[in-house]
Amino acid sequence: MFRPEIKVIDCTVRDGGLMNKWQFDDKFVRHVYNSLSKAGVDYMEIGYLSSEGMFSRDEMGPWKFCAEEDLKRIINGSEKKIKLSAMADIGRIEYHDIPPKSESSLDMIRVACYVHQVDAAIALAHHCIDKGYETTINLMAVSTVGLRDLDEALADLSKSRVPVIYLVDSFGAFYSEDIETLAKRYMESLPGKTIGIHSHNNQQLAFANTITSIICGINYLDATLYGIGRGAGNCPLELLLSFLKNPKFKVRPLIEVIEHEILPWSKKIDWGYFIPYMITGVLNQHPRTAIALMESENSHKVTDFYDQATSVS
Amino acid sequence: MFRPEIKVIDCTVRDGGLMNKWQFDDKFVRHVYNSLSKAGVDYMEIGYLSSEGMFSRDEMGPWKFCAEEDLKRIINGSEKKIKLSAMADIGRIEYHDIPPKSESSLDMIRVACYVHQVDAAIALAHHCIDKGYETTINLMAVSTVGLRDLDEALADLSKSRVPVIYLVDSFGAFYSEDIETLAKRYMESLPGKTIGIHSHNNQQLAFANTITSIICGINYLDATLYGIGRGAGNCPLELLLSFLKNPKFKVRPLIEVIEHEILPWSKKIDWGYFIPYMITGVLNQHPRTAIALMESENSHKVTDFYDQATSVS
Repeated sequence: MFRPEIKVIDCTVRDGGLMNKWQFDDKFVRHVYNSLSKAGVDYMEIGYLSSEGMFSRDEMGPWKFCAEEDLKRIINGSEKKIKLSAMADIGRIEYHDIPPKSESSLDMIRVACYVHQVDAAIALAHHCIDKGYETTINLMAVSTVGLRDLDEALADLSKSRVPVIYLVDSFGAFYSEDIETLAKRYMESLPGKTIGIHSHNNQQLAFANTITSIICGINYLDATLYGIGRGAGNCPLELLLSFLKNPKFKVRPLIEVIEHEILPWSKKIDWGYFIPYMITGVLNQHPRTAIALMESENSHKVTDFYDQATSVS
Repeated sequence: MFRPEIKVIDCTVRDGGLMNKWQFDDKFVRHVYNSLSKAGVDYMEIGYLSSEGMFSRDEMGPWKFCAEEDLKRIINGSEKKIKLSAMADIGRIEYHDIPPKSESSLDMIRVACYVHQVDAAIALAHHCIDKGYETTINLMAVSTVGLRDLDEALADLSKSRVPVIYLVDSFGAFYSEDIETLAKRYMESLPGKTIGIHSHNNQQLAFANTITSIICGINYLDATLYGIGRGAGNCPLELLLSFLKNPKFKVRPLIEVIEHEILPWSKKIDWGYFIPYMITGVLNQHPRTAIALMESENSHKVTDFYDQATSVS
């Protein structure tokens, strides 16, 4: 599928960091940065933008903050061939802590929010636009949102100046037909805007639903190396770039960095398709109970977990 | 998706046996049999039908042969609530070694063949029909078959008495659009026949392509518990039954048998999404080179493997 409007956003460090509190060392982050650049990926989301003091640097690695000095250390004086993005959560970044674009190596700030936070998200995103950044709003957990609330949120977003709005399958609950239905609704409700997709792999559908999104006209595509990410993980970037027929994309640099940086992490942390994540995905539930089970010594006790998750009492 | 014509065929023992030469013990096979029965699965493919002497019983477990005495030991005198199937490969079973249906616990024999073996497959399948069995022909590796050869094979199959013809994605190479194109061609070329799908998970699309197949009108659906199978494995049965809305299907017995029989195997043998399988899938190659790499001590050397697989020399 060659469509020049398509942009690919790698979320390896930002979403993968949810598993290890962003404790990736500079060698890892620099290798990912250089490999994504060689692969022709459009954006690298390198972490979260958080105010210092909101979290402890003793506990959280540098990519929870994305301070300019940390970004500069990764870029290391080389010519920047990939745009850098950071995600901002409502309430975790003070407006005055966001530097003007001219003083930052970041190109894009993506505001993540739930449907009840849309007004705050638009205000923050407008602030970022006014400081010179590209901006998106990533509307999370829409699989649990009623149609009236969703339409109201989309109506508010349509009136905003934010150019890119994301459909986020936070729980990995969507089938392709859900993606088709929602993509249509987003397009109709958000004329003139670009739509993005961020999927999760609880039902082994993250890549398939991203393909469906492309067919539906969605142009901003999130993925991570080898699907790394919290819980069931994400759409694997190496599959996505193999599918896209744009000759600017190269798969080999992705295979190389997976071998040297991602496979070693796969020995230390489990992500991907596991029965507890499958169960929360099928049931359209937040994966927190599945993550807790997987981190316990009872990770194999999936029948008990199924019984608890499906209990109506 | 509720459609009463849909039949689900579990291939756990037959396809999973490709990984361990069918050395599943009776406890495993009986637990799978009982759980599939409780789950409402339509067919259990319990192994291959091979003539004794074609393979050594010292090397191969009982499910390479599916002898009646082995089947009886699993059924154990209970009322049979699931149909049993066995796969037959051309040239590995002598006609006279196939018992009449009245002397067998098998209900269905599925003949696997490549496109150049279609005549032999039809002859074997007709022999099975005449002995009283339900029969399918599973046309393998069609992702490597030219359109003229495919059309000729489909024309031959349309003239046969075999009621069910399978579309088999042997290399895990198909995207949903390929499935749509081929499903349409199969339907048009095989009027009055039922079409089946057997997918592989090299690109994490086995389940998604099975959903696409259902939407296209394909009614025989292959899957395995937790996707167990050689290489990247198969469409996970627990995902498929969770998707299908027929109330006769129950997911809990699948979760329970996965916990007790499949997860222990997952500690001993790797199947599922790994970069070598992804590479052969994307390149539409037989997975044998990837399987050899995964069984070697160099399984992590995926960049070298990529370079070899993509080498034009």
